Amino acid sequence: MLKYELDKAFAALADPTRRAIVDRLVQGPATVSELAQPLPMSLPAAMLHLKVLEDSGLVTSEKVGRVRTCRIDPKMLSQAEQWVAQRRQMWERNLDRLGAFLDDTKPETEK
Amino acid sequence: MLKYELDKAFAALADPTRRAIVDRLVQGPATVSELAQPLPMSLPAAMLHLKVLEDSGLVTSEKVGRVRTCRIDPKMLSQAEQWVAQRRQMWERNLDRLGAFLDDTKPETEK
Repeated sequence: MLKYELDKAFAALADPTRRAIVDRLVQGPATVSELAQPLPMSLPAAMLHLKVLEDSGLVTSEKVGRVRTCRIDPKMLSQAEQWVAQRRQMWERNLDRLGAFLDDTKPETEK
Repeated sequence: MLKYELDKAFAALADPTRRAIVDRLVQGPATVSELAQPLPMSLPAAMLHLKVLEDSGLVTSEKVGRVRTCRIDPKMLSQAEQWVAQRRQMWERNLDRLGAFLDDTKPETEK
């Protein structure tokens, strides 16, 4: 259900380390070691963040031999973007409507 | 700092009750009682969710007499939207670049 998917996606994005991993993965796929290397934490700690991202659906991974490669799953990223974008658009539309209403109710001399 | 602001904004959006409050507020300002009324919880519980939204910068409120009115603060909504939109765009750009590279490396006969 989208409701719980969005819970997980936004919760996953609510952490700077996980956003840094997303930042790296939008450039292209990366192995777990490549993702963990620049992070100021142990490999197991980085792997926990990766697990949260995978559980949220924002990231997928595949193991070939001994190497696990991670990549962005764009579906969830788009859904999170759409949720926020639609609310921002609704807010703007209602602001425009209020503006039009205020214009219409102005006395003729002020128009 | 934007990093911590985004932490709070995404954490605030990671809850269906808080997203329902945002859904209501993008239609226009509302009092605390109006926001709490449709929610399946007590007024104090609803007010805790409102506090998280206010702390995140997504919502502001103003008390006039005994009535507190809440409204969307569009700045933070836009920042959250932009963060996700930029990552989705970067991901697509890198996918396009990969596509172009694969096209270029195809033998002439397959083009």
